[in-house]
Amino acid sequence: MKILGIDPGLQTTGFGIIESEGPRLHYVVSGTIKTKEAAQGDLPNRLRLIYEGVREVVERYEPQQASVEIVFVNVNPQSTLLLGQARGAAIAGLMSLPASPTVAEYTALQMKKAVVGHGHAAKAQIRHMVMRLLSLPREPHNDAADALGLAICHAHAGHAMAQMAKATDLQRRTHAQIKGGRVY
Amino acid sequence: MKILGIDPGLQTTGFGIIESEGPRLHYVVSGTIKTKEAAQGDLPNRLRLIYEGVREVVERYEPQQASVEIVFVNVNPQSTLLLGQARGAAIAGLMSLPASPTVAEYTALQMKKAVVGHGHAAKAQIRHMVMRLLSLPREPHNDAADALGLAICHAHAGHAMAQMAKATDLQRRTHAQIKGGRVY
Repeated sequence: MKILGIDPGLQTTGFGIIESEGPRLHYVVSGTIKTKEAAQGDLPNRLRLIYEGVREVVERYEPQQASVEIVFVNVNPQSTLLLGQARGAAIAGLMSLPASPTVAEYTALQMKKAVVGHGHAAKAQIRHMVMRLLSLPREPHNDAADALGLAICHAHAGHAMAQMAKATDLQRRTHAQIKGGRVY
Repeated sequence: MKILGIDPGLQTTGFGIIESEGPRLHYVVSGTIKTKEAAQGDLPNRLRLIYEGVREVVERYEPQQASVEIVFVNVNPQSTLLLGQARGAAIAGLMSLPASPTVAEYTALQMKKAVVGHGHAAKAQIRHMVMRLLSLPREPHNDAADALGLAICHAHAGHAMAQMAKATDLQRRTHAQIKGGRVY
């Protein structure tokens, strides 16, 4: 089964695909979709680049499953709004083809626990563990590492998926009650 | 020239198309894309419905221009995030076809000024003025009226468009500095 991980962002959206054969994980591809080339401040065109980039990845590699990071409200509401739009465009790209993957959602905390073993892992630890788990010759870049980590998280979830989905819903409801928001 | 107005929302996205012949405006079609049928809490599928709905409208009516409401940060950061995702999926739908319309963005304030003449218009005034300006037999529903209002706003902007785009940029920059956010 091919799993596509997506770490959405307005400037840089990371993607990473792995193939899982039972407990074995194989690296397929990873990279980033960057929107800086788009005319400055032209939000619709940046969203188009994210949408088209994700769609192209799905079209080319045909993953059966997708794992997208759940983004949280930022201290800056304007950034929250922009990140939300980037995530909306990325998910539209995922779901825009007849053979679109089913989409699961995980928090960064869940991803870190699955990849490193605890939720307070630094970026460097994630890069290192992703390299080891996928037997890569070197560490991937941050955005790609997070995306690959999301794919690994979904592969690990396996039978426990139903329970994790419930936990996610609970976190969302809980989080919705925190007015100030937090950065993860 | 056919102009498509879009009022994005996670539950209900309004759309309205008008045709402008110089100063004359003609009603083409309007309606709403509702996502309540999607499995409760299944955000990716709700975003897919918005994306597909907007894409279908563009495919069927082939508008040359689109006018999308600029959404603002809400008092509730979680709502802001959801609204952002809905807007991202709607814009992805607008820009997903080879003959996609060019996308302009207006605030609710700019739309109200263009349709009613001042920025503090109530919903009922917008419905009434949209009905009059487009010679409709009756008032459109709220979501469709806002979407038609956005299309009218873009048609009126005409030569003043460059200036309005500048004003919008300014409003955004200003707004980004307001930490608490406001509901419009």
